Amino acid sequence: MEKVKLKLLYSDLKPELDMIEKELEQAVDSESLLLNDASLHLLQAGGKRIRPVFVLLAGKFGNYNIDVMKQVAVPLELIHMASLVHDDVIDDSETRRGKPTVKAEWNNSVAMYTGDFILARALEYISEIDSPKLHHILSKTMIEVCRGEIIQIEDKYKLDQNLRDYLRRIKRKTALLISSSCELGALVSGTDEKTAAHLRRFGYFIGMSFQIIDDILDFTSTDEELGKPAGSDFIQGNITLPILCARKNPEVYSLLKNNLGKELTEPERLHIVKTVRDSTAIDEAKAISERYLQKALEELAYLPKGNANKTMRKIAFFIGKRKF
Amino acid sequence: MEKVKLKLLYSDLKPELDMIEKELEQAVDSESLLLNDASLHLLQAGGKRIRPVFVLLAGKFGNYNIDVMKQVAVPLELIHMASLVHDDVIDDSETRRGKPTVKAEWNNSVAMYTGDFILARALEYISEIDSPKLHHILSKTMIEVCRGEIIQIEDKYKLDQNLRDYLRRIKRKTALLISSSCELGALVSGTDEKTAAHLRRFGYFIGMSFQIIDDILDFTSTDEELGKPAGSDFIQGNITLPILCARKNPEVYSLLKNNLGKELTEPERLHIVKTVRDSTAIDEAKAISERYLQKALEELAYLPKGNANKTMRKIAFFIGKRKF
Repeated sequence: MEKVKLKLLYSDLKPELDMIEKELEQAVDSESLLLNDASLHLLQAGGKRIRPVFVLLAGKFGNYNIDVMKQVAVPLELIHMASLVHDDVIDDSETRRGKPTVKAEWNNSVAMYTGDFILARALEYISEIDSPKLHHILSKTMIEVCRGEIIQIEDKYKLDQNLRDYLRRIKRKTALLISSSCELGALVSGTDEKTAAHLRRFGYFIGMSFQIIDDILDFTSTDEELGKPAGSDFIQGNITLPILCARKNPEVYSLLKNNLGKELTEPERLHIVKTVRDSTAIDEAKAISERYLQKALEELAYLPKGNANKTMRKIAFFIGKRKF
Repeated sequence: MEKVKLKLLYSDLKPELDMIEKELEQAVDSESLLLNDASLHLLQAGGKRIRPVFVLLAGKFGNYNIDVMKQVAVPLELIHMASLVHDDVIDDSETRRGKPTVKAEWNNSVAMYTGDFILARALEYISEIDSPKLHHILSKTMIEVCRGEIIQIEDKYKLDQNLRDYLRRIKRKTALLISSSCELGALVSGTDEKTAAHLRRFGYFIGMSFQIIDDILDFTSTDEELGKPAGSDFIQGNITLPILCARKNPEVYSLLKNNLGKELTEPERLHIVKTVRDSTAIDEAKAISERYLQKALEELAYLPKGNANKTMRKIAFFIGKRKF
């Protein structure tokens, strides 16, 4: 339901987004039945298509040509999809958005190769664009996204890590791809460099805020809203901001420490989720997310007024307030 | 030992190959300890570096500049390395070239992400090159390599597949990357299109021959020579050319059919390997490999004589005769 509401915010873009949706379906089409099934499964699991949206909106600050924008929006969403399917292998996730993951429906190998295939498709799109600068930004982004995932493996189950470790991780995991979506949308539509830089920073800040909210929701939403058990991050050993805030209380610290990496019973899981949810951690984490949101809004203030600016602003506010 | 002999064939290129080796080491370097360990493990497991060799040799037909050649040779070897580490996940391989695989030494997740990281590094190199045509060839190659792997999963355990299925698979799995190495080496050194096309076809034919020999050796070599148990392909359900040839005998067909996908005892494995090895299948498969080898040599005949041509010829012969 919230997803529907978010889509209302960019209803102006509906015809273009429908076009991109069709293009995504074509992009994952192949001769292989298995691959088609797995890719379509992933595609139909939906998602907010927030990266294409930001590409298109950023393009509105320059010479907007949907056929050109599409060439960037599609591969960026494909890179995101590929990273999701590989994430599920790492986190051993059974469900995503209420549906079984590719690794659960098939197995780890299929998930790995579906991701590889989708990534290769993304590259095919990118290779059609004749801009070394764009290629450079995209490959850098892919490297950082990928590094972020490796660091996420390394940082798992480490309750004593720094806030900085967490921020670095979500930057690579989420913020960079959204930041690049904004920057590349600006670049291919030929905005001036200053505009592109503001859009890039807007994307970065909004991406940070977005991921922090995501990590909060993992504790505050119901299982049904999440489409997976609440507290999944903790169960998978991912130390998120709410956990980093909650651990400051020595009693909560002991509870977390004693249960990290353990096979939890249902009452144990619910107890941990409730403890974090009822602590001051949620408000502290929200305050940090809010700071990023404000920074994002500041960047928008430097940009020309108009519909695109207004929509970006609305999306930013929505992200700050979203419930799931 | 055979690897040493192969290296003698291109000893002229040693200084350049040493340079590429160093560059590969740098390429897989990252801030992540885990990633460094896994990548170096993979790099040090060696390999023939046949793709860089073909890039360099193809470059000798044009304006050879090692700094430019390097920019293509390194990512091509990285793509190959990344595909190996992902293959090991799919095939559940414990050893490669006598050493534990990344998935065996660590686990499937690490193998998946090490592959992703190495691939991302390859892209970083590629993105430095300002040639849309080159990007296009490379991304097409990556897609086909990846599709080949998916088809390999789909075709597993299917004893009744066609020869064509097998040839299509090894084309995508091996021949295309070698073919692209030759073509891209030609392209970046600015040869004319005809030369580049002959080199591309040479690479394709030699790649096909190479992979068929590899599949034969899986039956005819000892476990020590292979660095893994002989008959691994059959055990993993990969239906290779020797199996396709051997199945024509009804008794052998039954033996294969009854044991495909089964957990084999040591005597059962040895019996199957011996049966295929002692059948006419090996000679039939060798004859097909030989045909590809001849086609490769024909392509060389169209190219200017000289050291590079001679070395390519020697490598082609070596591949046809190699024992492991």
